[in-house]
Amino acid sequence: MENVTIRMLAERLQLSTATISKALNNSHEISEETKQRVLALAAELNYVPNPYASSLRKKASNTIAVVIPEVADSFFAEAINGIESVAQEKGYHVLIYLTHESFQKEQAILRDFQSGRVDGVLISVTTETAAAQHGLEQLVKEIPIVFFDRVCEEITAAKITTDDATAAYKATTHLIAGGCRQPVMLSASRHLSISNKRTEGFRQALADHQLPFTAASIIYCSNDTIATHELLKKAIQKEHYDGIIATTEKLATAVYEAAAALHLQIPHDLQVIGFSNLSTAKFLNPSLTTITQPAFDMGKAAAALLFKALKSSSFALPEQQEVIPSTLLIRNSTLAAAD
Amino acid sequence: MENVTIRMLAERLQLSTATISKALNNSHEISEETKQRVLALAAELNYVPNPYASSLRKKASNTIAVVIPEVADSFFAEAINGIESVAQEKGYHVLIYLTHESFQKEQAILRDFQSGRVDGVLISVTTETAAAQHGLEQLVKEIPIVFFDRVCEEITAAKITTDDATAAYKATTHLIAGGCRQPVMLSASRHLSISNKRTEGFRQALADHQLPFTAASIIYCSNDTIATHELLKKAIQKEHYDGIIATTEKLATAVYEAAAALHLQIPHDLQVIGFSNLSTAKFLNPSLTTITQPAFDMGKAAAALLFKALKSSSFALPEQQEVIPSTLLIRNSTLAAAD
Repeated sequence: MENVTIRMLAERLQLSTATISKALNNSHEISEETKQRVLALAAELNYVPNPYASSLRKKASNTIAVVIPEVADSFFAEAINGIESVAQEKGYHVLIYLTHESFQKEQAILRDFQSGRVDGVLISVTTETAAAQHGLEQLVKEIPIVFFDRVCEEITAAKITTDDATAAYKATTHLIAGGCRQPVMLSASRHLSISNKRTEGFRQALADHQLPFTAASIIYCSNDTIATHELLKKAIQKEHYDGIIATTEKLATAVYEAAAALHLQIPHDLQVIGFSNLSTAKFLNPSLTTITQPAFDMGKAAAALLFKALKSSSFALPEQQEVIPSTLLIRNSTLAAAD
Repeated sequence: MENVTIRMLAERLQLSTATISKALNNSHEISEETKQRVLALAAELNYVPNPYASSLRKKASNTIAVVIPEVADSFFAEAINGIESVAQEKGYHVLIYLTHESFQKEQAILRDFQSGRVDGVLISVTTETAAAQHGLEQLVKEIPIVFFDRVCEEITAAKITTDDATAAYKATTHLIAGGCRQPVMLSASRHLSISNKRTEGFRQALADHQLPFTAASIIYCSNDTIATHELLKKAIQKEHYDGIIATTEKLATAVYEAAAALHLQIPHDLQVIGFSNLSTAKFLNPSLTTITQPAFDMGKAAAALLFKALKSSSFALPEQQEVIPSTLLIRNSTLAAAD
């Protein structure tokens, strides 16, 4: 007779293997109705828990996953260091998965987690990710998960963020104090809540200084470096911007590229602020004024929350929220002095 | 009666679970003698292969691991992109593990692979790793593995490297052509073969230009940023170096830090070449002359080899070697013109 497995139960009941496993282990995360359905079928098919499988599953554990768009960005590189500082202490492996800003890739990775490969997940979503279409809502119910930086507003889950609206407000006010009358914000996404919050702070600062917010005030840039370079060059020539807020590290570099191509002097022709944790920011020509995000601390806080949940199943993980402030570091790519 | 598992067989025979599994599957990688020992014990204990365990094991697959020291370095960030460009096409997940230059952490990660979590491994070893003490030699026999960039010379295994000796020779010659008489090389390790090859190229270039190679010609720097900064400042003041070859990205940034602290002008007081893939190298003040390593192509080539081995068990993976050349990109941190 063929061995009856959790997978077979899952297929017959159209549930995930994680749900079956939790139902069999009487987890509080599973409804009574589902538990009854699972137990009834398990009894009918004479399912016997398999000690080797369960030991294999345990073996696949002591591991947390970090799902991020990329590592070629100091923010994520530092956040990983913060996460690993905690995981190391707990004796856990950290697996890093990259989505390369692809929503499809992200979904494939999330599906992989349903096999029980990892004990918990730390995630910063792609620029394409919108909560509604997403398997994330389901995953949050099945596995401990903490969102950091790029969170999904619509999903009830643990979140570690920075003060994006306030940081953008500060950056905009700093440009205006330096004489900018035509500032523009370069945004990486129309969907991400952090992008929308930065837009909000930018818009509020313009309003508070009687400057107009128009269709030309925000440029949405793709992940394609060459396309972004062309888009930027054209927009700067057409709109005569005098200040730019680049909301990612790559976009800050792209502005230096565009300024060089157009023979514009930073900061005299064009002031620049980058949201960035670049270790070379102070050695750039000119040195780059940055909104520096608390990347290490955000990673550390996210991991600390996750381990609390792994330690105690009664910890109300999805209700946890923490906002860690960013800092404006004034250097030579902008003209205003510190307040 | 307790189920007999592969793990039990492994414990009884003092072999890894991977070896037992391969022996039971009649793998050519296992000696006849070992196969006989495994089969004899399996028969004695009435071992029955477990279909669920085997499916779980399969489920834990379609995955390759990348083991690297860190991601806060453009070389590794780009190499990952090269690796993922291949893995994506093959429908594989890529798990990234960081060693943070710790040999102990590396060993813990390698042990984790013996559970069959991944199908293959791409590795760039830590600055502490010396072949002799290492579990790597054993792992190479148990799982398909490709070394890239930081390889272990003493182990017979597939290796993708760049022309480190030639690149260091070129860098040194370039400094000498720009008037340097007291060049120094900053090295990250006394153990790594790539470090030793760079030393060799550096030494040869000095000899070919009748310059002495002394105890002060090489500085070994640790992974500790603050200690490196102090070490560099003191050494530059004491030895009056006029040219520096920084063999990692972090060391290049450290030289800019030290020069600023000592009020030395680059390139007039001190010329600098960095082994680096920094996207901001051309925007630094002054722009940084680099030995640019083919990071993306090295990652891609390493992944391509690994997938060949995963596709065909007769592919002689450990015999594969490829060297992809680096390029000298001359910018403003050095004085000599191009040849």
